[in-house]
Amino acid sequence: MTNMQYNVKNHHHSAVEKKFKQPIKIARQLQQQYETDVGSFFAEIARFPLENLCKILIELPSDIFGEAFSRIPHKKMAAALSYLASDDLTDFLQRVKQYDQDYAKSTYCLLAPDEQAEISHLSQFSADQAGAYMQMELLSAELTDTLSQVKQKIRIFRKEEPNSPIFKLFVVDAEQHLVGILHFTDLILFDENDTMQTIIAQATIHHHKPLSVHATTPVEKVIQIFEEYELSIIAVVNDKEQLQGRIVFEDVYDLIRMQEHNQALKMAGTDYEAEEESLDSARKARLHWLFINLVALCCAAFIVSLYKDTIEQLVALAVLMPIVAALGGNVGNQAVTVTVRKLALHQIDWNNAFPVIKREIVIGGINGMIMGGVVSIITFIWFQQILLGLVIAIAIIINLAVAGLTGSMIPLLIKKFGGDPAIASPLLLTTATDAIGFFVFLGLAEIILI
Amino acid sequence: MTNMQYNVKNHHHSAVEKKFKQPIKIARQLQQQYETDVGSFFAEIARFPLENLCKILIELPSDIFGEAFSRIPHKKMAAALSYLASDDLTDFLQRVKQYDQDYAKSTYCLLAPDEQAEISHLSQFSADQAGAYMQMELLSAELTDTLSQVKQKIRIFRKEEPNSPIFKLFVVDAEQHLVGILHFTDLILFDENDTMQTIIAQATIHHHKPLSVHATTPVEKVIQIFEEYELSIIAVVNDKEQLQGRIVFEDVYDLIRMQEHNQALKMAGTDYEAEEESLDSARKARLHWLFINLVALCCAAFIVSLYKDTIEQLVALAVLMPIVAALGGNVGNQAVTVTVRKLALHQIDWNNAFPVIKREIVIGGINGMIMGGVVSIITFIWFQQILLGLVIAIAIIINLAVAGLTGSMIPLLIKKFGGDPAIASPLLLTTATDAIGFFVFLGLAEIILI
Repeated sequence: MTNMQYNVKNHHHSAVEKKFKQPIKIARQLQQQYETDVGSFFAEIARFPLENLCKILIELPSDIFGEAFSRIPHKKMAAALSYLASDDLTDFLQRVKQYDQDYAKSTYCLLAPDEQAEISHLSQFSADQAGAYMQMELLSAELTDTLSQVKQKIRIFRKEEPNSPIFKLFVVDAEQHLVGILHFTDLILFDENDTMQTIIAQATIHHHKPLSVHATTPVEKVIQIFEEYELSIIAVVNDKEQLQGRIVFEDVYDLIRMQEHNQALKMAGTDYEAEEESLDSARKARLHWLFINLVALCCAAFIVSLYKDTIEQLVALAVLMPIVAALGGNVGNQAVTVTVRKLALHQIDWNNAFPVIKREIVIGGINGMIMGGVVSIITFIWFQQILLGLVIAIAIIINLAVAGLTGSMIPLLIKKFGGDPAIASPLLLTTATDAIGFFVFLGLAEIILI
Repeated sequence: MTNMQYNVKNHHHSAVEKKFKQPIKIARQLQQQYETDVGSFFAEIARFPLENLCKILIELPSDIFGEAFSRIPHKKMAAALSYLASDDLTDFLQRVKQYDQDYAKSTYCLLAPDEQAEISHLSQFSADQAGAYMQMELLSAELTDTLSQVKQKIRIFRKEEPNSPIFKLFVVDAEQHLVGILHFTDLILFDENDTMQTIIAQATIHHHKPLSVHATTPVEKVIQIFEEYELSIIAVVNDKEQLQGRIVFEDVYDLIRMQEHNQALKMAGTDYEAEEESLDSARKARLHWLFINLVALCCAAFIVSLYKDTIEQLVALAVLMPIVAALGGNVGNQAVTVTVRKLALHQIDWNNAFPVIKREIVIGGINGMIMGGVVSIITFIWFQQILLGLVIAIAIIINLAVAGLTGSMIPLLIKKFGGDPAIASPLLLTTATDAIGFFVFLGLAEIILI
């Protein structure tokens, strides 16, 4: 798959492009090199230009990352770190600290004072707060600044922060409170001597939303605001409402992606952080859910044991009962997934959930009738017993309708009581569909067949 | 949850803000209104300002959307549609067409000729092509244009397209080939008489990537380019490499979200499009997978039936066998989810898959030993049979290690043979873990216990 095919062309600045682009792809190659030839892996790292070094390293999987930085001299690392935005810089050093506290400390001491200040400010925020994704490098102007003063500020900013793109202009009052966010398309149409005050009053900027979030705002909320208001950038303020930094679109791409990945992993009974950390922490995070699931499975096994005598008399029941339970698990899982998605997209909540629950019961019931019919025919052909076919058909219809009910109710209930609907839903569901499936099938069999 | 809490403030232009913001939220309210009081639902729709009408309607779930537009006069609808960007306009009319071809046709005829041309151009692209997400409204300048000519173009564009934000300036040559993309932060620092040619040559714009995609480029690839290059905007060109339109960040937020949602739904055995369409199409999409799963389940049932005599002699096996199978299903599902995610993030492919497979086998094996130990103790306490405890422990260890192997291999194999690893993986997995679980457990029991 060549770039040509998709017309990803570096039209003019190809030299500059090559140096700055696609750290992700370089990291993937590096990862393969690590697995085949560690020597050339370290040789390759030593060759990377400073501008790009940290951006590539941060993309490496955690086990490789831990080794990759270790052979880079502190001084070189400090110089390379200066090319990162403040949020990435903080994130990088925090990751290094997990593997080698001394290395992180020595490197920190070699950074510029303003970088140190940014790190100590940003590292107070946890990964689920807006502050952790805030770049402190930004261009702001005061209300009284004229356009020509702003131009001078742009020139200075570009010299001091050559790696930090200026997307929009943040306008603040004398106490650093955010007053507006100006797009440069607006600025370009005004005169040198117009002040920001004048420009804000006149600019026709319905698409420039001077929205802000607090550094402590949950990151879930930040993502939601970006999507609802279709923002490319948002201002971050402190608890005195003063401008502190900005969060930009490229972080939002990552955040949406990670939010979704995390949800998918949670539903399967594991955890994004744990998976990234090490084999052992991934294993433990997963084991946790296996144990909880075992409790559920023992309940299902207990229900089966109640019908031991029935099974002894008709062993075909043991052959068929996994089908009833598994089909219920399938239908329930479809309902859980659809409901968790609707909750994540804020399409439903507890108050308008009834149509969703009804829909899932109807879908489960109708599909239950179809599957029940098919399975009863299979059963009849296999075991030549009409009544057994009837029992399994009824059991499947009931179990699949109930699976639709429980599959949609469980995430809604968990959400209502303040939990994360993705985490425990599939688990609770499996218990429900297994237990109900066995109970209905074996119970009916005992009544009708024995 | 008030806006204040998150400091989502409308600093200055609050009147303008209110009119333009958050169609999603309004749509949610409208949806509730529809369910409780259809009369007030239509009254509310009639009251919306033209600027906002279509943006709200498009956010409604499809079953409500189909009714919502029907009472709006064609002329009003045509006027409201003019406030949409060309891609959304096309999308809107295509959705209307699904419900009422005549309504769509009559409205189309009332649109301005340039809008009609844009629609007929854009509607040739399918939903998985870049062209479908392309806005044709954009500001471009030629190389020979001076900055003051560009300013004039901005003024004209703003008058003609008041609802279309200008993010960057596309610079083309005389044949409309894309030459560069300029940020207005660059433009503002130059003189009135500088041409775009001069500015491109001098601007220090390492972060302005003049990347482009073809209108026929798969949308998956477009998303990948946006994320890899951290773009806010990309140019779309035709097959003669001439500038056609742009795709912007706000569509990328949606696209990433939908890509992930679609994947999650696929893994659960349903489909995003089908779920959005109607209850019946959702039900059929789900039924499809239940049938395929049934084939798998019959294989598992067949394996159980091979050991009917064994179960008859020791009915505890029927009680315990769901535990062995379900734990395998769990471990396999964890492995499938992690592997599908890694494939989606392009972190692995077939060639460097060995460490991933090994990892999953090790995790499955170690957790198998722990769960096997616990279950054998439970079994011993429950049934007072040491050998039965031993059999179930061995079966669980083998099944969980094999579940790690199959769970990671299945998505990799499907991907290798050109399939979508999300779609059939969980399904094939269930067959594997059920069948292997029953086979190992009952087979061992027959050898050791009977």
